Amino acid sequence: MKLYSYWRSSTSYRVRAALNLKRLSYEIVPVDLVAGVQRKEDYLTLNPGAGVPTLVLEDGTTLTQSLAILDYLDATWPEPQLIPFDPLQRARVLAAAHTVALDIHPVNNLRVLGELKTRFGATQDQLTDWMCHWMRLGFEALEAQLEENTPFVFGAVPDIADLCIIAQLYNARRWGLDLTHYPKLRGVEEACLALPEIAAAHPDQQPDAKVIS
Amino acid sequence: MKLYSYWRSSTSYRVRAALNLKRLSYEIVPVDLVAGVQRKEDYLTLNPGAGVPTLVLEDGTTLTQSLAILDYLDATWPEPQLIPFDPLQRARVLAAAHTVALDIHPVNNLRVLGELKTRFGATQDQLTDWMCHWMRLGFEALEAQLEENTPFVFGAVPDIADLCIIAQLYNARRWGLDLTHYPKLRGVEEACLALPEIAAAHPDQQPDAKVIS
Repeated sequence: MKLYSYWRSSTSYRVRAALNLKRLSYEIVPVDLVAGVQRKEDYLTLNPGAGVPTLVLEDGTTLTQSLAILDYLDATWPEPQLIPFDPLQRARVLAAAHTVALDIHPVNNLRVLGELKTRFGATQDQLTDWMCHWMRLGFEALEAQLEENTPFVFGAVPDIADLCIIAQLYNARRWGLDLTHYPKLRGVEEACLALPEIAAAHPDQQPDAKVIS
Repeated sequence: MKLYSYWRSSTSYRVRAALNLKRLSYEIVPVDLVAGVQRKEDYLTLNPGAGVPTLVLEDGTTLTQSLAILDYLDATWPEPQLIPFDPLQRARVLAAAHTVALDIHPVNNLRVLGELKTRFGATQDQLTDWMCHWMRLGFEALEAQLEENTPFVFGAVPDIADLCIIAQLYNARRWGLDLTHYPKLRGVEEACLALPEIAAAHPDQQPDAKVIS
């Protein structure tokens, strides 16, 4: 399989972690979002939404949208299971994942920041405030929902909610958000990064990672 | 069941349509997003994310996040099926649904518009441009992916992608987006609204609908 991925993209991070946990082999094809490679014609043919990640299966089938890719991977290679079968448990896990994937990430991604600069002349400080505002709202909602005393969001093993959270926490640290008030989320981060499969999916471990001062 | 819903919320519209298609009976509890009812303590206890919809099941179990609710409804009452079983077909349908639910809607909702006004002094024209920009990007990506000659997104019956699209098209019309270039999406809209179950979920048919000039 080929995964079109950008090192700092939290949606790519989610899928890299899932592929690693399921011990699937894949080749990373870096897509430089800062250079605008996602808007070139070649890439748009693969992914008309101009986003990452894109997963190309062995038979050439192309999958887009990180959560749809995670759903496919889980249905096809169910070990370890990332989305529970039980409808109610499934709804809870998805709701936690969606608190990151729908309420935080889409408002905080690179293309939104670009529009804030172009349309409203947003300064770097205003962008930082914008990023932190949405993370704070989402993290407060999550922190209120998470159970006590479990290393991962819903128990002893990571699921799709953990993958969304670990990727968003990378972003939070990058933007300097104070995480003091989210002890449960920090616990999830610690438990996730202790797993070599998730640690290997971290942005800094990617072939396209850049040293940024 | 009780559905906490706001008439113009496209995430509420998706879930109302699913409940109607599955012929489930439910009571609508209006949540006035413009008046800020979603941030009152009572409501936050139900839904710490301060969003709509929230579905309360007969036994009092509370579900949040529209896509997680749709997943639960489909797993529990599979007729008519809104998310296919086949992993690949499922990934395609979810990717189309997510193009609306992750790429358009979160950047276009009421709370984002509020922050654009507060933080950047956005004018009404700037808000309209903002709304239309994200809809245009998402609709172009969708239009490029949809099959020809099927009334619904993926064939003869509506699925979760149709429900996301119909609700977003309501928003598009409300904001005056020119839909000329999206004939397939307009076809989906026509097919959806011809079904009484979806027509009954339309914002204008809700108990909390207001006549706005």
